[in-house]
Amino acid sequence: MINFKTVFRLLGSLLFIESFFLLLSTAVSLIYSEPSYYALLIPASITFALGALSWKRKTKTPAHVGKKEGYLIVALVWVVFSIFGALPFVISGDIPNYTDAFFETMSGFTTTGASILNDIESMPKGLLFWRSITQWMGGMGMIVMSLAILPMLGIGGMELFAAEVPGPTADKLHPRVRQTAKRLWGIYAGFTVIETILLMFGGMDLFDAVNHAFTTMATGGYSTKQASIANESAYIQYIITLFMFIAGVNFSLSYFALKLKFKKVFTNEEFRYYTGFVIAFTAALTIIVFSRNYDAGFEKAFRDALFQVVSLITTTGFATADYLQWGALGIILSFTMMFFGGSAGSTGGGIKIVRIVMLFKNSFLEFKRLLHPNAIIPVRLNHRAIKPEIVTNVLAFIVVYILTFVIGTIVMSGLGLDLDSAMGSVIASLGNIGPGIGSVGPSENFAHIPQIGKWFLSFLMLMGRLELFTVMIIFTPVFWKK
Amino acid sequence: MINFKTVFRLLGSLLFIESFFLLLSTAVSLIYSEPSYYALLIPASITFALGALSWKRKTKTPAHVGKKEGYLIVALVWVVFSIFGALPFVISGDIPNYTDAFFETMSGFTTTGASILNDIESMPKGLLFWRSITQWMGGMGMIVMSLAILPMLGIGGMELFAAEVPGPTADKLHPRVRQTAKRLWGIYAGFTVIETILLMFGGMDLFDAVNHAFTTMATGGYSTKQASIANESAYIQYIITLFMFIAGVNFSLSYFALKLKFKKVFTNEEFRYYTGFVIAFTAALTIIVFSRNYDAGFEKAFRDALFQVVSLITTTGFATADYLQWGALGIILSFTMMFFGGSAGSTGGGIKIVRIVMLFKNSFLEFKRLLHPNAIIPVRLNHRAIKPEIVTNVLAFIVVYILTFVIGTIVMSGLGLDLDSAMGSVIASLGNIGPGIGSVGPSENFAHIPQIGKWFLSFLMLMGRLELFTVMIIFTPVFWKK
Repeated sequence: MINFKTVFRLLGSLLFIESFFLLLSTAVSLIYSEPSYYALLIPASITFALGALSWKRKTKTPAHVGKKEGYLIVALVWVVFSIFGALPFVISGDIPNYTDAFFETMSGFTTTGASILNDIESMPKGLLFWRSITQWMGGMGMIVMSLAILPMLGIGGMELFAAEVPGPTADKLHPRVRQTAKRLWGIYAGFTVIETILLMFGGMDLFDAVNHAFTTMATGGYSTKQASIANESAYIQYIITLFMFIAGVNFSLSYFALKLKFKKVFTNEEFRYYTGFVIAFTAALTIIVFSRNYDAGFEKAFRDALFQVVSLITTTGFATADYLQWGALGIILSFTMMFFGGSAGSTGGGIKIVRIVMLFKNSFLEFKRLLHPNAIIPVRLNHRAIKPEIVTNVLAFIVVYILTFVIGTIVMSGLGLDLDSAMGSVIASLGNIGPGIGSVGPSENFAHIPQIGKWFLSFLMLMGRLELFTVMIIFTPVFWKK
Repeated sequence: MINFKTVFRLLGSLLFIESFFLLLSTAVSLIYSEPSYYALLIPASITFALGALSWKRKTKTPAHVGKKEGYLIVALVWVVFSIFGALPFVISGDIPNYTDAFFETMSGFTTTGASILNDIESMPKGLLFWRSITQWMGGMGMIVMSLAILPMLGIGGMELFAAEVPGPTADKLHPRVRQTAKRLWGIYAGFTVIETILLMFGGMDLFDAVNHAFTTMATGGYSTKQASIANESAYIQYIITLFMFIAGVNFSLSYFALKLKFKKVFTNEEFRYYTGFVIAFTAALTIIVFSRNYDAGFEKAFRDALFQVVSLITTTGFATADYLQWGALGIILSFTMMFFGGSAGSTGGGIKIVRIVMLFKNSFLEFKRLLHPNAIIPVRLNHRAIKPEIVTNVLAFIVVYILTFVIGTIVMSGLGLDLDSAMGSVIASLGNIGPGIGSVGPSENFAHIPQIGKWFLSFLMLMGRLELFTVMIIFTPVFWKK
């Protein structure tokens, strides 16, 4: 029996967190003396009230949170947060349509960064701050989920990547989760502060620096500028590149790095492949970009290529250049990177580097297995043999990911998008990237997508963010059987 | 140690077969009193001479053909056949460029059907006959390989689908292969004769009927008309649809059907899903086609949809209509079908229905496994539990297939094709279909592809035809280790 009471009470309690950040945004709005501050204050009050109601009903005996309750809470919290988080945009009238507001908010919480805004600079600062902070909250939530909660739910081999918590045998949320979470939040917040300071060194004002630091560390990609990062100085572009790269690393590794255990970082296979992919794609794209425009110089070509590679591989989605202008090869390379995703345990979306590495390793080993059918040849990661069930699980994940992409593309084509735009909008949402290809490229936005398409893409963002199975399992009959 | 002597001797002996069919084509050319008959006679003589040389050197002790020899022979026979099979086109001067001729021939032997010809009707009949017969030979070769030889090499779970031969434990080619092969050739030839007769009933002349029967049963798709099947009567279009459908069924099942064991056919899961996919896609496309042109009538919409669905799912590639004119949804549905392929043990290319079914089943079971991590939940096919190694192998196959598609698309983009055409040309070749999307759609051809691209696509045809691993394994260091 699923304990719905517990599910609802926990969801309610989590609304306190949203309320807190809505209040913070209200404060920002008041600092800039914006008349629209009430648009943030009202939802802050509503979420606070609902949180208090749930809190009051808390009993003394700790609730049992089983696997099924875990799945429901994890999936619903993003939906509930988005439902309330969309209100400020509608109340202020800056995004009058609720569908658009919900899309923008879900895109925020899932750290996707796909936007329907045509004129970002005209938005009140309080709302822009709230928009950025949805991403920051989403990134924070994701680190905790991927390193502490999802491994226990057995999602897509995530137990492999949990450096700090017990394995998937535990059937209820472990008390150490709280401790792990605190430590990771500390690192996440620390990086955000450092990036803010470094951006201000480069001449960004405090508001823009904080916002960009929020959305960089979350690999979200919301900017306070319509042109994204294109008009910023080379220094700022490099700083943002650096922090996007950091945000795409498993935060457990960052923890080891901060404890100066560099060997643990550099011997980590996922980190090595992640770095390798960035170098390889940057090299290829630098050549392409440079060959298309010698006059701009090699440094600019390298910077544009590096920025875009890191932005796409980490699924951040910031842009300094329009990769749709880089020819067929530039487009297909960019499109391919959209499937990668950052490291597991990072804030990045996508398939995740470690899964892709396991995929390649398993495929290669298949040749060995063909020639030696009686030998047992396991996939190894970080010198440890991986259980076959986990390999099957990872392969199933990748396959379901691609199927979702295909079905999503069919749906979006059915809504009237051309093939490129359909594929682009789907991978941009499913991979939590932001910009795609076709009519949703980096110099465009999602405003023109039909209403029903926006709901559908919002759902894909959620699916992608929660590693597919977490959301899908709720729709299976198996889940609802006693 | 790989026994190269055996490899070469067997390859040489197989040239007798090519010589025989070249002679047959020479006869056709002579019947139509074509001056270009010598273009077929010369290669017929060369292949005969080479075959005789190999034959002469045959020793009395039967050669040991191990796994590695098996891989080499399987992969090389298609290359060798194409090298000599391209000669008639070059010698007669009808395809003066050897690259084009090789592409056309490899496209024939692999039953792909991608063509570089701009004016098919102007070709000598002897050469057209040879072109069709390359497909017929390829189809025949594939049935034997997929039902008898590949299972023993352990390719992509093919052992699952071998109804007639011993399992993958056998390390050398089994004598029963010969017997199985004969029976399957009989069925294949029988269907070809019946189709020829039925097409002639519909008013086709003998030459066109034979050619179309050859390329239908091979799911090849070469036509003797530039317009493919578009200008034929409804009767002929339905007949060809029926035989494409039959050619997409596992030939072991056809054998059971001919022995009136219909229960074996209708309870076969792959057959049921195959039929189900055809019905579902036809229903969807009928609606799309009908809604775009009411005036043509419902029957025409249904016929065009059905024909295209069966043609693409079986990877035949005949066309009665240009699906690129069916809107974004029509295109993406057509494109999706290109990944399906016929049944295992049929002449169809692509991923194959049974693998897609296993993929879906395994993905769905993953949910059960998440909720019951300690239970062992195997994938079942035809009421039998499938070994986990085979599931991993099938998943690895699908993943490598998609990776090959992606890498192929990157290569073709690099050669200057736009994204749609790059994707289209790659899947059309890799899936052994023929027409793709973009500039290689059903009303276009491959003549405009750059030379190097034609060699690359020829290689993809071979990879796709031989279930990837058979070719890839030869390029791994593991293969060449002692």
